[in-house]
Amino acid sequence: MAADNPHPTPIRRTRADQARVVADVLRHHIHAGGYPDGLPSETDLATEFSVSRNTVREALAVLKAEGLIDRGTKVGTHVAVRKYDHGLDALVGLKETFKDYGEVRNEVRAVLRMAAPPTVARKLELEPGTRVVYIERLRYLGDLPLSLDLTYLAPDIGDLVVEHPLETNDVFALIEQVSGQRLGSASLALEAISADPHSAATLQVPDGAALLMLERLTSLGDGRPVDLEYIRMRGDRITMRGNLFRN
Amino acid sequence: MAADNPHPTPIRRTRADQARVVADVLRHHIHAGGYPDGLPSETDLATEFSVSRNTVREALAVLKAEGLIDRGTKVGTHVAVRKYDHGLDALVGLKETFKDYGEVRNEVRAVLRMAAPPTVARKLELEPGTRVVYIERLRYLGDLPLSLDLTYLAPDIGDLVVEHPLETNDVFALIEQVSGQRLGSASLALEAISADPHSAATLQVPDGAALLMLERLTSLGDGRPVDLEYIRMRGDRITMRGNLFRN
Repeated sequence: MAADNPHPTPIRRTRADQARVVADVLRHHIHAGGYPDGLPSETDLATEFSVSRNTVREALAVLKAEGLIDRGTKVGTHVAVRKYDHGLDALVGLKETFKDYGEVRNEVRAVLRMAAPPTVARKLELEPGTRVVYIERLRYLGDLPLSLDLTYLAPDIGDLVVEHPLETNDVFALIEQVSGQRLGSASLALEAISADPHSAATLQVPDGAALLMLERLTSLGDGRPVDLEYIRMRGDRITMRGNLFRN
Repeated sequence: MAADNPHPTPIRRTRADQARVVADVLRHHIHAGGYPDGLPSETDLATEFSVSRNTVREALAVLKAEGLIDRGTKVGTHVAVRKYDHGLDALVGLKETFKDYGEVRNEVRAVLRMAAPPTVARKLELEPGTRVVYIERLRYLGDLPLSLDLTYLAPDIGDLVVEHPLETNDVFALIEQVSGQRLGSASLALEAISADPHSAATLQVPDGAALLMLERLTSLGDGRPVDLEYIRMRGDRITMRGNLFRN
């Protein structure tokens, strides 16, 4: 760095700061399938990252606390969970997204008509109190619960959608089928929240586990909003991926 | 619903299931600034959602546990935190994003050169061991810590970027300034993780609080990747928003 660098490097950084650096790079390499036969040894990782073995150990402890890796004295360090990529680029249902990974099946927890709460009615551009169709599904990939989806559908679309098997179809596909239109676009809001006890039990994660919470309002090709969803995704199982462009 | 509806409505749903429905709609209405003068009374919310007051109380307890609302017997229910929207649609820095909300300032925790770990080198399309520039910043909006950003820059770009004040500029803006090019695109991976104790203390959130974790690899207009970032955002303060289109 130049002599007049306005940002002097701190002489010593705490081990926790250094461990975070290591953990972050490892985390994403693990998600990318980078260590199919287990992680390198502590010594090798210490060399790769130019840190001490104690720092490596602390980084691995962070990833172990997240449930991402298993460690054993004899067997070394292995990847404990597989994460699945969900697209931020296109409007695609879960079944369509994961068709190469396995079968998505939906446990249908509720199908009912309800008077739309005012905020739901406003988003769906309906009169307050209009009866909408509400669907609640726990979605599995194989035996693994991935997400809990709460869905409000505009009444004309919803009445037709629920005549079809919801256990084995994406709602997106059914909307296109019954409306005879392609979906147009969706606006989405993505947050990280801690699982409340009941949602945690339903998704089979510990109390307070980090969830990706997605609110998504989807419109038909003609611009009419017809599908409002609140989706809790297991943070340990789903990564959202996409691309951004400079305007 | 038609008589042959294949999805019979359950006679009774648990209160927790009903409370989740109420909490989700309220959560996003709160984020949208929907209750500037406080939330409606329990009785009014019970009417809006066609549920019991006990269910409303349980929904409000969930939002209170998330830190989103305050409740007092005399003063009613008020919104406790303000969340800020970060764009999923365009490649924009934090300062540029929040220019209408207040001043973004960066506490620069580290600026150093390091041999790129192999996975970092690969993403930046550098030879393994190339010395990259590493920057660590805790980013504030006013007095509120919003995110902890770990940044790896390609050496030619990084050497020039760190000659500028990092406390008051977005790295994106500096990269464009020193390279004489516009940014092109970025690939991103977004997850929900629980804060490890040290990161939690740094971001001033409770241990285990839900964080949005973003890995973002940004390329110049000519396609060269120059900026790899690992960004922890406070889940209680940031919502990522964007739009999707059906391909």
